Amino acid sequence: MQKKRIVIVGMGFGGVHAAQALAGKGHDILLVDRNNYHLFQPLLYQVATAGLEQESIAYSVRAMARSWPDVRFHLTEVTGIDFSRKEIQVTSGLLPYDYLIIGAGSATNFFGLTAVEQHAFDLKELEDAEVLRNHILSAFERAVIEPDPARKRALMTFVVVGGGPTGVEFAGALIELVNFVLAKDYPELGIHTARVVLVEATDRLLAAMPQELGMYTLQKLRSMSVEVLLNAQVVDVDAEKVSLHDGAVIPAHTLVWSAGVKAAPLAARLEVPRAAGGRIIVEPDLTLADHPDVFVIGDIAWLQQDGKALPMIAQVAMQMGVYAAKAILAKEQGSVLPPFRYHDKGSMATIGRNAAVANVFGLQLRGYPAWLAWLLLHLYYLIGFRNRIVVLLNWVWYYWFHERQVRLITRRKPMKQD
Amino acid sequence: MQKKRIVIVGMGFGGVHAAQALAGKGHDILLVDRNNYHLFQPLLYQVATAGLEQESIAYSVRAMARSWPDVRFHLTEVTGIDFSRKEIQVTSGLLPYDYLIIGAGSATNFFGLTAVEQHAFDLKELEDAEVLRNHILSAFERAVIEPDPARKRALMTFVVVGGGPTGVEFAGALIELVNFVLAKDYPELGIHTARVVLVEATDRLLAAMPQELGMYTLQKLRSMSVEVLLNAQVVDVDAEKVSLHDGAVIPAHTLVWSAGVKAAPLAARLEVPRAAGGRIIVEPDLTLADHPDVFVIGDIAWLQQDGKALPMIAQVAMQMGVYAAKAILAKEQGSVLPPFRYHDKGSMATIGRNAAVANVFGLQLRGYPAWLAWLLLHLYYLIGFRNRIVVLLNWVWYYWFHERQVRLITRRKPMKQD
Repeated sequence: MQKKRIVIVGMGFGGVHAAQALAGKGHDILLVDRNNYHLFQPLLYQVATAGLEQESIAYSVRAMARSWPDVRFHLTEVTGIDFSRKEIQVTSGLLPYDYLIIGAGSATNFFGLTAVEQHAFDLKELEDAEVLRNHILSAFERAVIEPDPARKRALMTFVVVGGGPTGVEFAGALIELVNFVLAKDYPELGIHTARVVLVEATDRLLAAMPQELGMYTLQKLRSMSVEVLLNAQVVDVDAEKVSLHDGAVIPAHTLVWSAGVKAAPLAARLEVPRAAGGRIIVEPDLTLADHPDVFVIGDIAWLQQDGKALPMIAQVAMQMGVYAAKAILAKEQGSVLPPFRYHDKGSMATIGRNAAVANVFGLQLRGYPAWLAWLLLHLYYLIGFRNRIVVLLNWVWYYWFHERQVRLITRRKPMKQD
Repeated sequence: MQKKRIVIVGMGFGGVHAAQALAGKGHDILLVDRNNYHLFQPLLYQVATAGLEQESIAYSVRAMARSWPDVRFHLTEVTGIDFSRKEIQVTSGLLPYDYLIIGAGSATNFFGLTAVEQHAFDLKELEDAEVLRNHILSAFERAVIEPDPARKRALMTFVVVGGGPTGVEFAGALIELVNFVLAKDYPELGIHTARVVLVEATDRLLAAMPQELGMYTLQKLRSMSVEVLLNAQVVDVDAEKVSLHDGAVIPAHTLVWSAGVKAAPLAARLEVPRAAGGRIIVEPDLTLADHPDVFVIGDIAWLQQDGKALPMIAQVAMQMGVYAAKAILAKEQGSVLPPFRYHDKGSMATIGRNAAVANVFGLQLRGYPAWLAWLLLHLYYLIGFRNRIVVLLNWVWYYWFHERQVRLITRRKPMKQD
């Protein structure tokens, strides 16, 4: 067997699973990412709500690669790909490949709303979570010294857009932060006037889940005093208010946007067929139509199954990563895999303390059992044993003491030039 | 007894101890700091060398203040003080006081070397540690793709200036990070060519310690392959090299400056008598000469004892904080405390694994016993039980597995404007 050079772009869930499946199989593997860590995105909202330190949900790529034979890593950004010359262009030069796996992920989709893009916070990258946490805590500090009651309340009003898992989880975690933790931190503020408003464009929450679980989530969030607005859309925003489609105006200094994702910017830089959200259209074996040596996986890939595009979630990316790796190994042995097929293992979302919804193994769980399942599954998928212990420690602390200890406002200093 | 308004500026070791001693004694206490956390500076070097997450060495001021009756907190920066009107000027307005305790701390002293100030890294604030960690890890990533062997080595060369505790501890932690951790992360680099150079202007290390402990430290660092240059001074630096007093040039992309501290910038904005390093000269009872209601404590205060100025260290600050609090309480009861007297409980510095020096309780310890004493004492003084567990967990992990897990290059995103 000839040794091939396989480049994997992006160390998200797809890229990591591809690398794991390819390592030690006799090929040279080069991992490329603009961060030196794998980020566990599903817990970003807990960093943003002071529940976890950012370091506990990120894991060094080199720490993983240590146990993978013939795997190297380049910290660099991909600026383009020449499919005919089989080269990727990175900031530091050109990298040739025999096989390429593209798993560059996704970015927040602001759907062309430039005011929203300018003012809204989102939760895609590690620093987004820290920036949002700093902003939330700073808003309360500013409220302390704000003499005008209306502005004071606007500083303590948080509008979250999008009733999918991220929006639901963030809104639930934020209202708990306010009611359990910040209420004790800011006795001088009438903290019961703080508002968390969840805005959803359709008539239900968690559209990907069975109807009953969406209903449970709605009731639970409302019982926790999250104001849920269904069939509502944000049309404009500035530093002090959020405007809705029906003319209603919410005085608020914070807008968190979790209403949509699109393909990562890399997709637009390539000459490839693209579908909705700029995602790259792939063949049933995840390759590009004219380039059987190029696989596209995860959020950035667009593939229909049973008449519907596969969702942009971690599970799809992981299965695609493993498939792409196996497909390459099969090709090298002269065989061909059957087309990729996604196996939906279900989904879950946590709402708050002892409350979650899960649709797994054909079961619909809600409340405590779903919450426990959520905790265990997220700990299991988190990479790094030490990270698991730190996360578990924070969760136990919060559960027992109602304390989230990472409520720091860290300052931003630019890196030194050299 | 009349209720007085006491303002404490700065939540370092001095301010926290003053607040603790004043809380619940019948007065209104207002804490002021430009950060919302108390920082445990002695462990900053471990954040910079990927050993600890930054959140584990900082503790929310509001979390502390919760258990302190009649204590409030303002997150703001002090821009000036009007001693005659008894008001401090902060970004958000004016704050009146009956008693004022100033514990604004210190800043790095570059001694007018502007090239050094521009290029060097220092370790005073939380973000300094993160910036330095990012820089160190980025230097290794750049070395991986650097074709020129001389530049490659310069990227892996780190010059540390100052043979005091910070310089010694940082140099030791850095060489261990390189030899134990990064050597495994970067198999493609000849990591034995990496250099850590410690430059000290005098003829010995740890000048505040007994001679024998300084000798032990020198031998230990050299045995760990730190290059220690005594009687040497840095006179110039640019992005790629460090120049010494004797004309020698060290090609290096990183200069860490721990050669001196001076009073925090606030001191220069006040009309007060100042001594060396811009420190505010105080009376034997820590008050300003003409203002018996203003106490100055910690690094920013200058007081002689037995013919020598008190050192700028945490212990002095803590004792001064407690003294200032007690002096205020005494005055309110019509009595007067004897002059402040610093009781030196000794000092210690860790060099590396199982190796430290300590001069405590009249004992001179070195090696393993000193190291153990250092660990226990630092855990004891760290604020927050959860922080202690997280720090201990990281230490155990490193001790057993030679792993420092926080080796992330985090990116800097500016905060959103509003």
